[in-house]
Amino acid sequence: MANFKGHALPGSFFLIFGLWWSVKYPLKYFHQKGLKKNRLSQQQQRIEIIEGAVKTVFAIIGILAEQFVPDGPHLHLYHENQWTKLMNWQHSTMYLFFGISGIIDMLTYLYSNIVPLGLDRLILAMAVFSEGFLFYFHVHNRPPLDQHIHSLLLFGLFGGSISISLEVIFRDNIVLELFRTSVLILQGTWFWQIGFVLFPPFGTPEWDQQDMDNIMFITMCFCWHYLVALCIMGINYSLVYCFLTRVKRHAGGEVIGIQKLTSDHTYQSALLSGSDEE
Amino acid sequence: MANFKGHALPGSFFLIFGLWWSVKYPLKYFHQKGLKKNRLSQQQQRIEIIEGAVKTVFAIIGILAEQFVPDGPHLHLYHENQWTKLMNWQHSTMYLFFGISGIIDMLTYLYSNIVPLGLDRLILAMAVFSEGFLFYFHVHNRPPLDQHIHSLLLFGLFGGSISISLEVIFRDNIVLELFRTSVLILQGTWFWQIGFVLFPPFGTPEWDQQDMDNIMFITMCFCWHYLVALCIMGINYSLVYCFLTRVKRHAGGEVIGIQKLTSDHTYQSALLSGSDEE
Amino acid sequence: MANFKGHALPGSFFLIFGLWWSVKYPLKYFHQKGLKKNRLSQQQQRIEIIEGAVKTVFAIIGILAEQFVPDGPHLHLYHENQWTKLMNWQHSTMYLFFGISGIIDMLTYLYSNIVPLGLDRLILAMAVFSEGFLFYFHVHNRPPLDQHIHSLLLFGLFGGSISISLEVIFRDNIVLELFRTSVLILQGTWFWQIGFVLFPPFGTPEWDQQDMDNIMFITMCFCWHYLVALCIMGINYSLVYCFLTRVKRHAGGEVIGIQKLTSDHTYQSALLSGSDEE
Amino acid sequence: MANFKGHALPGSFFLIFGLWWSVKYPLKYFHQKGLKKNRLSQQQQRIEIIEGAVKTVFAIIGILAEQFVPDGPHLHLYHENQWTKLMNWQHSTMYLFFGISGIIDMLTYLYSNIVPLGLDRLILAMAVFSEGFLFYFHVHNRPPLDQHIHSLLLFGLFGGSISISLEVIFRDNIVLELFRTSVLILQGTWFWQIGFVLFPPFGTPEWDQQDMDNIMFITMCFCWHYLVALCIMGINYSLVYCFLTRVKRHAGGEVIGIQKLTSDHTYQSALLSGSDEE
Repeated sequence: MANFKGHALPGSFFLIFGLWWSVKYPLKYFHQKGLKKNRLSQQQQRIEIIEGAVKTVFAIIGILAEQFVPDGPHLHLYHENQWTKLMNWQHSTMYLFFGISGIIDMLTYLYSNIVPLGLDRLILAMAVFSEGFLFYFHVHNRPPLDQHIHSLLLFGLFGGSISISLEVIFRDNIVLELFRTSVLILQGTWFWQIGFVLFPPFGTPEWDQQDMDNIMFITMCFCWHYLVALCIMGINYSLVYCFLTRVKRHAGGEVIGIQKLTSDHTYQSALLSGSDEE
Repeated sequence: MANFKGHALPGSFFLIFGLWWSVKYPLKYFHQKGLKKNRLSQQQQRIEIIEGAVKTVFAIIGILAEQFVPDGPHLHLYHENQWTKLMNWQHSTMYLFFGISGIIDMLTYLYSNIVPLGLDRLILAMAVFSEGFLFYFHVHNRPPLDQHIHSLLLFGLFGGSISISLEVIFRDNIVLELFRTSVLILQGTWFWQIGFVLFPPFGTPEWDQQDMDNIMFITMCFCWHYLVALCIMGINYSLVYCFLTRVKRHAGGEVIGIQKLTSDHTYQSALLSGSDEE
Repeated sequence: MANFKGHALPGSFFLIFGLWWSVKYPLKYFHQKGLKKNRLSQQQQRIEIIEGAVKTVFAIIGILAEQFVPDGPHLHLYHENQWTKLMNWQHSTMYLFFGISGIIDMLTYLYSNIVPLGLDRLILAMAVFSEGFLFYFHVHNRPPLDQHIHSLLLFGLFGGSISISLEVIFRDNIVLELFRTSVLILQGTWFWQIGFVLFPPFGTPEWDQQDMDNIMFITMCFCWHYLVALCIMGINYSLVYCFLTRVKRHAGGEVIGIQKLTSDHTYQSALLSGSDEE
Repeated sequence: MANFKGHALPGSFFLIFGLWWSVKYPLKYFHQKGLKKNRLSQQQQRIEIIEGAVKTVFAIIGILAEQFVPDGPHLHLYHENQWTKLMNWQHSTMYLFFGISGIIDMLTYLYSNIVPLGLDRLILAMAVFSEGFLFYFHVHNRPPLDQHIHSLLLFGLFGGSISISLEVIFRDNIVLELFRTSVLILQGTWFWQIGFVLFPPFGTPEWDQQDMDNIMFITMCFCWHYLVALCIMGINYSLVYCFLTRVKRHAGGEVIGIQKLTSDHTYQSALLSGSDEE
């Protein structure tokens, strides 16, 4: 992972999921407001299962990339009296946790009468926590800027982990879901930022990793990324609302939140077009 | 911001809002007790929107002040291979977060059927957290007293941030609202204190920034500021109660909390006079 | 406070309150179970007000003791260009917070229709937090054992502060109340322990303040104090139960928790005798 | 405890309990879903009491082992002007807390109308916290790997302690119970891991306690242990479900979660066979 691509890959994964969530949760919110019920429709269930599957696939891609890049460990853990490429193994472990979270997501919605609701959130919280946990112990002995830029991520990770844990108890709280989404987008864009700062891809000059000013700028930059994440969410939120209102009008319905949506089909098509828009 | 005025400005902003809240929340509390309902009256909604607008204006003033003071960066971020006035940029970022919080406040009450309730609290919590976050990384390499006096603020900021986050779930809890108010007043007066200690304005002698005794005193002083904040809140709380009882009596009504207020107009006038009193 | 008496005084205050609570909360719990209601009887209210008054008196005694001991500051804060006896001032501040908490307790129960329920808990949590806050910044530059024995207290203080804050939302939860009681007793006995360790009163030999073994023992000893606090609470809890059952039987009533207590008078006499037993 | 057996003993205790819980809580969950009620059946109560008794017995075994091993303190605390074997005393204290937790467990279910529900959870949380507390202050001045491998345990302990405290308020939440179970299994297997790393039992070569790579591997290994704990729980969960479905079919009943179990006897036999399976 110690190169630009190694940061761009997880960054993209997180970004894709973050963008998807910034469309999905507003959709779900307006849909539930319209229908005045809390039960998951069959359609929603199917989408959740697909989401879990995509998460698992992303995790597997990540693990394979970490293990089988030319200078990767190729599944060797201990070789000639020393550990082989522990960095790659740590990254694989991180992906593995997200993979398991994906599997549990699928199980929760496939066998919702067997697997208790909330377990999916707990495992996701643990996956995010483990990522933070491994990052925390893995930035020692590096130049100050490298250490700082990675440790900023911890704020997002531990904050996200706490918020997701809360969802075990306060499930389907739209504000917690939007917070989770914003933290995820932040994580995605920040991985790209790390890649650009530590491994400038287009021949741009290297950053001075000892300079205090660079560290100060990066701290502030982290806040800006969060603001960008908020903006993206705000835009997607409004787009979803406009889209649903227009769908409504075409279907001869009324303003959302006042009367129930005419059919599940509307929601389904909304979700599908919503995901096409990305 | 590294002068007396730079601390007096945010201090005044926080103080004005803190004093306003110490009047507003008791008013709202007594009003709701009288009416035995939770819904926001149209009047309350209008006040919340004005509050959000004022917050946004304050933030814009702050940003402009930080950017366009004579030795400010004038919106230049990177100049001749080095970052320009990062301190001012960091302060601008802090103001920016509060500005966005103000905008979200307005949106929450303007479009309350679209924007989920609780989002305003989340964004405010994030704004307060970001302020603490930037402060935390920005006091290194300074004299001990300077470092200490700024880091005391973090207790207020992170405590406030946690308490505001709780309001996402336990909304309209008067105790949480009063706590938030007290922390805000504390922040306001503390900014003034920082200004007086680090940049004595009236030619008073400089404080010895290495002296342990000064640090011990400042720590205790922070507690005193909180006690003052509690007193201010107590006084305003009683004034609001007395005022409402008198208004009641004139209107021929009964003791508050037992019978409903005669008209929304009473509340409106109460709020307006309340804000005039400051 | 830097002597045996200075630690014995607050220790006794905390102990007296802890012991009283370990009788009061079981009494209240059994009483409420018997009556199946949540409202405060007038009797209970009177007891809470007396408790608040005693708390305030204790705080005033503490402040006076800290200010007017022979080597105290006698209310002088700044004298001949240096701070006077800042230690005593810090301790006075701690007492002051508890005094204000006592006043708020009284107000909450005297004017329960004006002062919002839960404010008493918030102020108490802030008082306990401030004690921890001041302690935290006040043990630097001392021998290791002194520093360690004081900082152990912080676990109790911050733990207690969090638990009391939770009572703002989960009021009248007997488990939280018992936890608070146990932490208070712990604090009381620990102040005595500090006195005995740092200022051996009966001519016993001094403790070696650099010895790692002493520090290890003190850490374990802190746990033992907590166990003792739990035992005291267990004994008082059982005594209260036995006492109430006997009172019941004499009054011709039935087993507690199944039928309601015959009269408020029973509870009142139970409370009064309960407090006599200490 | 500073040998392989000293770590294997508590590890086994924690593992046995963890495995038992990973069977018990799914059983309880499916049972409650079937019966649609929250009250504890008499059978369940009996099992809880036995569990408390076993916990107490384990704690007594632990204390006796720590005190009366050949090089133990044999109940002498202070001897010839120095503390005797403080390590063993600290471990005894840890066991003692769990013993008291066991006693409270028994009391809670024996006298459920006297002892408030939730006290058992609070005491368990305090026992786990105390273990972490003593560990935290007891790894100073050791080689880096020793220090690191012990401090990783703290994540499990403090995480577990917070989660158990939450159960005071959100009792019988299956997700919190499963999380507690997973942390307990993790603790059990990790104690064995510590034994294998620090005191290799079968003549395997010693680990280099200064090597950074070993520390990195151990950090990742901790995550793997958690994954193993999740897998064990997943397997036991599925086994319990399959077992209950089969029992149901034999008894002529319907799918679990839809119709109530035919008799308490089914649950009893399920529990008994469940514990036999280990």
